[in-house]
Amino acid sequence: MEMSSKLLERAVAEISQLPGIGKRTALRLALHLLKQPKDMTEHLTGAILKMREEIRFCRECHNISDVEVCEICSNLSRDKSVICVVEDIRDVMAIENTGLFKGIYHVLGGKISPIDGIGPSQLNIVTLVEKVKTGVAKELIFALSSTMEGDTTNFYIYKQIKDYNIVLSAIARGIAVGDELEFADEVTLGRSIIHRVPFESSLKNS
Amino acid sequence: MEMSSKLLERAVAEISQLPGIGKRTALRLALHLLKQPKDMTEHLTGAILKMREEIRFCRECHNISDVEVCEICSNLSRDKSVICVVEDIRDVMAIENTGLFKGIYHVLGGKISPIDGIGPSQLNIVTLVEKVKTGVAKELIFALSSTMEGDTTNFYIYKQIKDYNIVLSAIARGIAVGDELEFADEVTLGRSIIHRVPFESSLKNS
Repeated sequence: MEMSSKLLERAVAEISQLPGIGKRTALRLALHLLKQPKDMTEHLTGAILKMREEIRFCRECHNISDVEVCEICSNLSRDKSVICVVEDIRDVMAIENTGLFKGIYHVLGGKISPIDGIGPSQLNIVTLVEKVKTGVAKELIFALSSTMEGDTTNFYIYKQIKDYNIVLSAIARGIAVGDELEFADEVTLGRSIIHRVPFESSLKNS
Repeated sequence: MEMSSKLLERAVAEISQLPGIGKRTALRLALHLLKQPKDMTEHLTGAILKMREEIRFCRECHNISDVEVCEICSNLSRDKSVICVVEDIRDVMAIENTGLFKGIYHVLGGKISPIDGIGPSQLNIVTLVEKVKTGVAKELIFALSSTMEGDTTNFYIYKQIKDYNIVLSAIARGIAVGDELEFADEVTLGRSIIHRVPFESSLKNS
């Protein structure tokens, strides 16, 4: 796309580096900003820059947090011995929204993915293993997505902690509540039969 | 969406003000920037801010341009008497890509749209009418999208210039080259029959 302005061209090139945003969308966004008052662009870029510069991570669980120890980790009513292992803040938000989890989290910051150049050393794995070794953690709940990368990451952590006295679990996979069986994929349906639960417990929270 | 960080929350709120970008996408983009080196965020926000601060518009056609008179308007081989009236730079880029138009453009900067609070005074209409009144323009080609807003804008301009000695035309609407008739909408197909062209001329540029 050749443009009549290098300024516009550079802005579009930068915006289209964002994941899922193509050149056409980037141009649409740039033209939108040009039509709006300068204020809007200043607020937008200011908020992004400030976030990137000043963001901090909880010392305990590595979740994004404005304070040194996040609200969840510093909450005395949460069970510090049950740790849910997740990829990023979106998973924490999703599980917190259920209101059903009373333990704490450990945010890895990603999954092991050689294709994307992400190895174990770039993730918060050492501190997790430490929590197991020191006996702080009594149960780990693996809640990474069930992809090859998720499984690889789970297994990498598992190998380092399997000899310690700890309960290991994974979130249940199965047919979503309200979904019809006939539309479920075979792997999910198969798992939901193998990992069936006692009927009485299936009535909880329904 | 409640987040564990006000910094993140504010950035997501700002990003999701962009058209077509919801809260979920905004969060994904913000987390992407947090995973990348600070450089990337600085380049992105720098390019956007610089564009918004320093952008200029061609004195003649009002298209976005880094110089006072854009490349098209200052090109001596272009016919200054044939003016194609378009909405914004995307239309200019699309028509330029065909390589078939040798006239110049007049960029309105939008369409009349009372719903969006855009009246004629916010568009570059006065200078267009001036070009007609002074006799600089011999033909205007209306190339706005055929929506209610486009038609309203065309008609608003038409009323002001209809008494002057000028050829008025509109880009041809019809079945796209290569498209099957059976899949065309009725309005388009109807127009393509009413505005049929001599067979010999239909062979050009095929």
